[in-house]
Amino acid sequence: MRIQFDPIGIIHSPYKELKGMPIQPKGAVGIKGRVEVFEHFREGLDDLEGFSHIYLLYHFHLSRGVDLRVIPFMDSEQRGLFSTRAPKRPNPIGLSIVQLDRIENGVLYIQNVDILDGTPLLDIKPFAPQFDAQEHVRTGWLEKAGTSVSGRRSDDRFR
Amino acid sequence: MRIQFDPIGIIHSPYKELKGMPIQPKGAVGIKGRVEVFEHFREGLDDLEGFSHIYLLYHFHLSRGVDLRVIPFMDSEQRGLFSTRAPKRPNPIGLSIVQLDRIENGVLYIQNVDILDGTPLLDIKPFAPQFDAQEHVRTGWLEKAGTSVSGRRSDDRFR
Repeated sequence: MRIQFDPIGIIHSPYKELKGMPIQPKGAVGIKGRVEVFEHFREGLDDLEGFSHIYLLYHFHLSRGVDLRVIPFMDSEQRGLFSTRAPKRPNPIGLSIVQLDRIENGVLYIQNVDILDGTPLLDIKPFAPQFDAQEHVRTGWLEKAGTSVSGRRSDDRFR
Repeated sequence: MRIQFDPIGIIHSPYKELKGMPIQPKGAVGIKGRVEVFEHFREGLDDLEGFSHIYLLYHFHLSRGVDLRVIPFMDSEQRGLFSTRAPKRPNPIGLSIVQLDRIENGVLYIQNVDILDGTPLLDIKPFAPQFDAQEHVRTGWLEKAGTSVSGRRSDDRFR
């Protein structure tokens, strides 16, 4: 059973290539970008500006192939793909929580952008701690890696 | 440009129909389910059990059509679709953060399940507050709705 999606917009960012990109929005604080939502879908943006943070779901459009075991940027050991956010996934869907500054004429002005320029947008959802915050969280191999995501940068490994 | 995905597994839950379902994982605390990951992808589950919470991305497979303006379950006014989590989306991708209890033979035993039985799974990502927690968050129309998501139940409006 194949599932077909069409982009609803395009994400613009300063990052023209994978190498040197921040590896998470937390490593991209202050980095600005824009999301151009196609005209046909703009009516659905009403009320979104009330939210300071949003989920962007997008297509890792440059990702080719699947690696079920990867060495994440934040580790030195191989890990199972689904315990990572690496892009070479069976369904290469990216997920980033970005800060929404404002919306003008169907364009979302965003910050904390860790996304490649030209990335096809699949969906936007509001970020809401009353739904999304969790207590008593364990984070497996990431706990050893610490919280030092901010300085890490991408290299070519997931091209 | 069409984007094609194939399910990597199937989500099982007690919910056989939309009506009466919890509308968020926070309204489904303790509700148990299982995620059957297809054999071909199981190698990618290594190291996932170290994480107490995971994102499930899935296909709202019963969703038909698109409503760019909807009355959310938590409100009485029409809102722009992208400011809600309603299922009739241009790309009907669902996102739930569930608790992961254990993994056995490619089956994830999960809790806080607000997902329909038989839902096709698209992706699994680790939930990590060091990436995903946000500060100084505004949540627009949801702020008026309060935090009373736990008692709300679905009806037929998004069939």
